[in-house]
Amino acid sequence: MKVSRRALLTGAAGVVAFGKAATAQAPPAPSDPSKVRGRPSRALGQRAPSEKPQRQPRGVTSSGTPHQDLCGTITPADLHFERHHGGVPEIDPAAYSLLIHGMVERPTVFTLADLKRFPAVSRVHFLECSGNFGGRTPASDLTPQQIAGLTSTSEWTGVALATLFREVGARPQAKWFLAEGQDAALLTRSIPIAKAYDDALIAYGQNGEAIRPEQGYPARLFLPGWEGNASVKWLRRIELSDRPFMTREETSKYTEPMADGTARIFSFLMDARSLITYPAYPVTVSRGWVEINGIAWTGSGKIQRVDVSTDGGATWTPARLQEPVLPKAHTRFRHLWNWTGGEAVIMSRAVDETGYVQPTRDTLIAARGVSSVGYHINPITGWRVRPDGTVVYRPEPWT
Amino acid sequence: MKVSRRALLTGAAGVVAFGKAATAQAPPAPSDPSKVRGRPSRALGQRAPSEKPQRQPRGVTSSGTPHQDLCGTITPADLHFERHHGGVPEIDPAAYSLLIHGMVERPTVFTLADLKRFPAVSRVHFLECSGNFGGRTPASDLTPQQIAGLTSTSEWTGVALATLFREVGARPQAKWFLAEGQDAALLTRSIPIAKAYDDALIAYGQNGEAIRPEQGYPARLFLPGWEGNASVKWLRRIELSDRPFMTREETSKYTEPMADGTARIFSFLMDARSLITYPAYPVTVSRGWVEINGIAWTGSGKIQRVDVSTDGGATWTPARLQEPVLPKAHTRFRHLWNWTGGEAVIMSRAVDETGYVQPTRDTLIAARGVSSVGYHINPITGWRVRPDGTVVYRPEPWT
Repeated sequence: MKVSRRALLTGAAGVVAFGKAATAQAPPAPSDPSKVRGRPSRALGQRAPSEKPQRQPRGVTSSGTPHQDLCGTITPADLHFERHHGGVPEIDPAAYSLLIHGMVERPTVFTLADLKRFPAVSRVHFLECSGNFGGRTPASDLTPQQIAGLTSTSEWTGVALATLFREVGARPQAKWFLAEGQDAALLTRSIPIAKAYDDALIAYGQNGEAIRPEQGYPARLFLPGWEGNASVKWLRRIELSDRPFMTREETSKYTEPMADGTARIFSFLMDARSLITYPAYPVTVSRGWVEINGIAWTGSGKIQRVDVSTDGGATWTPARLQEPVLPKAHTRFRHLWNWTGGEAVIMSRAVDETGYVQPTRDTLIAARGVSSVGYHINPITGWRVRPDGTVVYRPEPWT
Repeated sequence: MKVSRRALLTGAAGVVAFGKAATAQAPPAPSDPSKVRGRPSRALGQRAPSEKPQRQPRGVTSSGTPHQDLCGTITPADLHFERHHGGVPEIDPAAYSLLIHGMVERPTVFTLADLKRFPAVSRVHFLECSGNFGGRTPASDLTPQQIAGLTSTSEWTGVALATLFREVGARPQAKWFLAEGQDAALLTRSIPIAKAYDDALIAYGQNGEAIRPEQGYPARLFLPGWEGNASVKWLRRIELSDRPFMTREETSKYTEPMADGTARIFSFLMDARSLITYPAYPVTVSRGWVEINGIAWTGSGKIQRVDVSTDGGATWTPARLQEPVLPKAHTRFRHLWNWTGGEAVIMSRAVDETGYVQPTRDTLIAARGVSSVGYHINPITGWRVRPDGTVVYRPEPWT
């Protein structure tokens, strides 16, 4: 790959990526840092004064990850998106317990210490809210955070739910289980028991440390690749049954009206999606080589390919995928593009290992109707690069 | 794998892992969190009040990662170890530049924006200080942090140094390069140029966000698998030459006296090592199943195997390795052990893909002499489990 030095070194001032200009609040850095003795070591590190990535709260019940400020695949824990229905509870870990009962041989209460005593596993996975599409209200000034901030990736550590189900003696007749949180919403969801024997975890670790409060401290259910609300946080009870419990969150909510008048229910799987995080609003690019990059993910395993278009979808080229490509985890894709000026629309399209192709908006609308309430909306999205180098969201009307 | 329920559920109160009891400072959590409306969403997350992992500063020049509090493989950025020779400088990213000159066709100054414009790569790697062995002063109350806190693992993002060397036209005669920091110590090291064409990065991202100040913000050299001091932070200058520069940090420091009276110099590679992080001082365990776990790493590629002994080294059993095992990165190993009581010494031994076996203390002393100043000290270490369940470091004298 050959990159023109001239193209790289001229007019790069507009490139922002995630290094932002120092703000007025921060004291000025010394003009020659080598002449000043630096700060001594300390117990906890902090970000550089000029780096201020932040989640963007939407009301009091959620906040999204600032993907436009991030690189790689891991989401820092304090920037992992949050979504809750009754606020973030404060739970004393010494008082925490998880009851597993119902169709089991030995109903059991596990303390946090009990859970940590079982064999542990650590896996890198994304978690995505099923309502993660902020592009339904068309506007050109939406950021990656506003379009798809409700997905994040962490290394999760915990005990396999299958291990606990063997411990309590799950009965063969049990086909579903209820998961109940101890937040003020008492969030409850019914989960097919096969997921427990596949890859479900009771997670207590996130990115090497204890799980954060808004992620379910001290322990949560974690269902890799499934819609976030089903991975019940602050988990206090699991009940095994031969049928689903038909809770409010799976009947009146988290269902999707379809074009034929029916509604999908128990639509757990998060399908493949991708998002260009650079260049994206609000950055400005300059002519020459631009490395388009972003994240792609799928609940169905590994991302197999991400195609990038720089001509509004007329032609597509496979991007490079950052290895290792892990199952059910954000995968960083990169595509070097020589922007020669003029208007351009850049887009990305994820393909997963099952052959599923991220759909267009038109395909989604045909299946669900334009008045969709909007869960599981994963359309191909694009950014418009204007002749002056400014980049804006390319809004597409949904109603 | 069969775990006895009785063993798991009795007497687990002594298990601490990384969930510590609430401290007096924190306001008490509600007795029933589901009856209280929780905290609203916010821009930045914080740890749970009862979770207080901290680095442990040694004087003003370093602080170590609290491995006894961590799980998985990723080190949270604010807990990544730090080591500096003139304090942590504050650098204005808008004023940052990197000069590459010497035996090159086109001496060039790169701004931070320039560096970010090149094709990027992200890779998970450990970084370890060559002085990372705190066990030379024998004491039974050393923690994993005190023995080996100067190693951490992050996902690093940056531009391959090879890309920049092609950009500036590195001359064939160039065999070494000097890396110079802009901290008050003006740290300088000479690096063989082959490393640039192998896997060296100029890193500006760490765990998804901008690199932290004590890790070299806004940009650093990163040499996977090599001793940390050579990965010069706050990098401002690279000079290519046909020979090493023989700086203070590679002549008077960071060399190792050997048993035969000579000294090793330019000993960049960090050899394989492992560390049991649980159980370890200061936890107390109870009888029954205990999952011994820890981290292993090697500068020579991938960890191939970690053997665990629970009888002081008489017999060894391969531990389970957490997949994916990544090259030059911490690998979590786990080994389920049924502690039936009585005194036991638990130990771990890493083997890497080159066949290198982590040495015993006696092997190291035979090679280097007992008065070694102590760089690249990677002996097998152990923990003594006493009959009452307390766990202490098993000190071995070095002088």
